[in-house]
Amino acid sequence: MKACVLYSGGKDSSLMAVILQKFSYEVELVTLNFGVFDSFKPAAESAKSLGFKHNVFMADIKIAEKATNIILDDGFPNNGINYIHKEALNLVSDHYDVVADGTRRDDRVPKLEENEITSLEGRKSVEYLTLRGFGHKTINNLSENLFDVKKEQTSMKNNSDYEIEVRYLMNEIEGENKALEIFPSHIQSRVVGWKNKI
Amino acid sequence: MKACVLYSGGKDSSLMAVILQKFSYEVELVTLNFGVFDSFKPAAESAKSLGFKHNVFMADIKIAEKATNIILDDGFPNNGINYIHKEALNLVSDHYDVVADGTRRDDRVPKLEENEITSLEGRKSVEYLTLRGFGHKTINNLSENLFDVKKEQTSMKNNSDYEIEVRYLMNEIEGENKALEIFPSHIQSRVVGWKNKI
Repeated sequence: MKACVLYSGGKDSSLMAVILQKFSYEVELVTLNFGVFDSFKPAAESAKSLGFKHNVFMADIKIAEKATNIILDDGFPNNGINYIHKEALNLVSDHYDVVADGTRRDDRVPKLEENEITSLEGRKSVEYLTLRGFGHKTINNLSENLFDVKKEQTSMKNNSDYEIEVRYLMNEIEGENKALEIFPSHIQSRVVGWKNKI
Repeated sequence: MKACVLYSGGKDSSLMAVILQKFSYEVELVTLNFGVFDSFKPAAESAKSLGFKHNVFMADIKIAEKATNIILDDGFPNNGINYIHKEALNLVSDHYDVVADGTRRDDRVPKLEENEITSLEGRKSVEYLTLRGFGHKTINNLSENLFDVKKEQTSMKNNSDYEIEVRYLMNEIEGENKALEIFPSHIQSRVVGWKNKI
């Protein structure tokens, strides 16, 4: 059976892909794009480095615009990022019977509430899988053993998180300082290949 | 690294064991016993049928007695079973760095709250893993593919759930009808071997 993993190129979504592959799902990694900026490229490279099929799903730019407005109104990213994530799950659920992401127990954003999961699975007739049974320590240990990971300062060019296209829109509306205030630069881990293939 | 899975012989805890084994943990399945009744035997058989090491941990009978009293006071099993499960996790966490169980997203009992997980991991310096990222449909699909499963009416002899020793104590205190009222007989799935070993 096919399974879709919403994919950013990070270790969490990569680990979810490996788990599903171990259980004989035909895994397809999917990164959303709103046509604003080619932010899917780092995820596509990570997917290729692990040998997974990678698809880019084009989504309505209005979703990214709405998220940008939510975030500018709030002054913090959580609700806007959650909104994009739910729309992403809605979109891929029209194309797959099994949809997954790399959200773990101690993630706060993006994260679906239990009633939102029940609603998604019911409305779309999908099974939704996460890494919510694992904490960050376990995921770090597992992925350190599995993957070659590059740690680096985030930039517009090495990151496929939802925030990149939102930043791009925010830069246009409010200028670069506002985007940097809401999404401060940080060290990220990007998967660049297998360390120990399993 | 060693990892302990609290084990009943059911498909959920068996699936958790397989996931951990795939990620190269040295898996040990553990069933608690309070010295009341040899209810660990079905779990030991299931473990053997899958080729996993199985340990029985003897626990203080006072835990089972307290759970029995909680359940008799409440008139329903949830709080008493949760109490045993937390004590089981406390006990195995003194012996392993990674402890796991087969609780899934839609389980209500036994289930630790998020603050209880944080507390367990902090107090005992363990990583705690569950199947909380998966719902029952996914777990049923995966285990149907992996395991030979025997479906049968529960009895005192074919089940290693916490309830068995509690039932035994309850029978002694209140007679068999009370135990049957609180724990009605139901169809259970017990793992009896591999269907497709992975």
